[in-house]
Amino acid sequence: VANQFVAILLAGGSGKRFWPLSREARPKQFLRLLGTSTLIEETCDRVRLADGTPPPVIVSAHRQQALVRESLGDRAFTLVTEPCGRNTGPAVALGLIHALRTTPDAIVGVFASDHYIPDTADFHRHLRAAIRFARDTDRIVTLGLVPTLPETGYGYIQRAPQVLSRAEGLACHDVAAFVEKPDLATAQRYLAEGSYLWNSGMFVARASRLLAELYACLPEVAAAADELATLLGTPAYEPRLLEVFPTLPSVSIDVGVLEKTRAIAVLPAAFAWSDVGSWNALLPFADAEQECFVRGERVYLHDCRRTLVVRDGEHTSVLAACGLDGVGVIETADATLVLSLDRAQEVRRILEAIEARGEHRDVL
Amino acid sequence: VANQFVAILLAGGSGKRFWPLSREARPKQFLRLLGTSTLIEETCDRVRLADGTPPPVIVSAHRQQALVRESLGDRAFTLVTEPCGRNTGPAVALGLIHALRTTPDAIVGVFASDHYIPDTADFHRHLRAAIRFARDTDRIVTLGLVPTLPETGYGYIQRAPQVLSRAEGLACHDVAAFVEKPDLATAQRYLAEGSYLWNSGMFVARASRLLAELYACLPEVAAAADELATLLGTPAYEPRLLEVFPTLPSVSIDVGVLEKTRAIAVLPAAFAWSDVGSWNALLPFADAEQECFVRGERVYLHDCRRTLVVRDGEHTSVLAACGLDGVGVIETADATLVLSLDRAQEVRRILEAIEARGEHRDVL
Repeated sequence: VANQFVAILLAGGSGKRFWPLSREARPKQFLRLLGTSTLIEETCDRVRLADGTPPPVIVSAHRQQALVRESLGDRAFTLVTEPCGRNTGPAVALGLIHALRTTPDAIVGVFASDHYIPDTADFHRHLRAAIRFARDTDRIVTLGLVPTLPETGYGYIQRAPQVLSRAEGLACHDVAAFVEKPDLATAQRYLAEGSYLWNSGMFVARASRLLAELYACLPEVAAAADELATLLGTPAYEPRLLEVFPTLPSVSIDVGVLEKTRAIAVLPAAFAWSDVGSWNALLPFADAEQECFVRGERVYLHDCRRTLVVRDGEHTSVLAACGLDGVGVIETADATLVLSLDRAQEVRRILEAIEARGEHRDVL
Repeated sequence: VANQFVAILLAGGSGKRFWPLSREARPKQFLRLLGTSTLIEETCDRVRLADGTPPPVIVSAHRQQALVRESLGDRAFTLVTEPCGRNTGPAVALGLIHALRTTPDAIVGVFASDHYIPDTADFHRHLRAAIRFARDTDRIVTLGLVPTLPETGYGYIQRAPQVLSRAEGLACHDVAAFVEKPDLATAQRYLAEGSYLWNSGMFVARASRLLAELYACLPEVAAAADELATLLGTPAYEPRLLEVFPTLPSVSIDVGVLEKTRAIAVLPAAFAWSDVGSWNALLPFADAEQECFVRGERVYLHDCRRTLVVRDGEHTSVLAACGLDGVGVIETADATLVLSLDRAQEVRRILEAIEARGEHRDVL
């Protein structure tokens, strides 16, 4: 099945939650947050199941294409442009027609390009199972992460009791419900209950099934994709894309298709995973003994807990921290951020303040 | 009385509690912590009661004399060298003979050079009263600060009920007891009780009285001072100083004299005062509204409380802080410290770690 599998990587995201490391011009997927490679590099390598796996299709905004090429170096991939942001529904449809062009009987997997999954072997076991389930059941197989925390920042997928299929020691279930981001009490109940899974946004399906469901659920998007597919490889593709894409509804693939179709299943997945949603999300990957996450040189910590220190680039100065708990220090060449990690969602407030004062916009 | 008043400023202190701003070569008194001037400059200006006040005598270590001259510019002062550290007893004796040389009927005041007193007028009112009390009662008049916090870092002076003298709306009392740094429960009791005062280390006395008490309590120190006094202004002074000073006992003026003599009194003083003992000590001087103390440019704070940001020198980068509470960020050209202000006493641990690793000793 590895030769049929085409990964569609959604790399159009932008965001400032990792400021000052991420900038308007360099969003999260292009950062080396948790390894020596950028998140998009790691994702690109991770979705390559075997030597014969076709190159992934990367759907990205125009302004990020240079960063994609720079990040991925001499890896093989198909780069697809979204002319504008229309959420993941139209982006997946666009990726899908490119996947079908190279691999007509493709089984596609859709992945964010900016998530972190440290154990590739464990991920591959789940991916192989998902591909088999997608092929055998002809459903869209979502990967639902077994929750480890009462997380309020994710949507959940409740699995039904009945097992549809088994493979690789894993079971694929009917979906009982998609549920919105819960409050803390509800999230705690979900965690205790056991049948609720984090909606990771990853899913696997036969390309033909996904196209059929797009037709059923988002006919306007499917029709546009179908028309563009006939133009692929011709000079007419690009102008038509620029014309039609902005007219498509801005809708996520989850809301637009996965939550509507009945051809859906969920594979409870237990591999380590993070959507790396904020500076706070790096802490679980800290050195276990010190509970501190340190990147960069000339760093001295004394008696710190749950502390994150990231120094980007070269620094001639020393950075010392003393007695901190739950604090992050991120230092780049032109900006340093010191933040309470519990408040990592509020980094944008700083950026608004800088924007408002109007003096140091070059650091945004 | 202003023409008789000679201040003796003790400037021999070293210390690293304000690292990375303070260094081995530049201790606290030479820092601009709380104003546009260094603490020693401010002290020098503060003890000048009137136009006719004689220049202060500054007792300092040899290695700091260039810093004293640099800091004080064209102010008038007498610079006296301690050949080595022998605590404040011998330092005061040394200062005393220099004060007596220029002002034979001097009333001296002894002050640390690295404390912070924002209201000079209020200080002068207390100082004038102390000088009058010292002259009229011929006692050593200590300034005991009315406590505002159950401070465990200071020694206390308990005043006796009986008032010895009144002036400038202030009263001078007998001393009931000197007490050591208390634990928190004791400090809370002292604060509630009302007769306990912080021992600020400041005192005023007729020079003749102080010399007499030195003879009574520290005869070895007094004898050496007496001998050196006869050599002042001759080439024999310096070699004899180098010879005799290191042989003197290392003893504080408090333990050596003030706590022993019965010719002692205390003036309860209510002016704002800080010994600026650590980074934490700057917070009370924060902007009242934000509870944040900010020095330096290109600083952005979002929703921080009890936060201290000090950027020394010029910085081209932005420094942003988000959601902090009780955190200090101190940035110099070659070192940045981020610390929990409750743990400000532990800065030396960082320095020990840098010393131990042996790589970046240039920042110590």
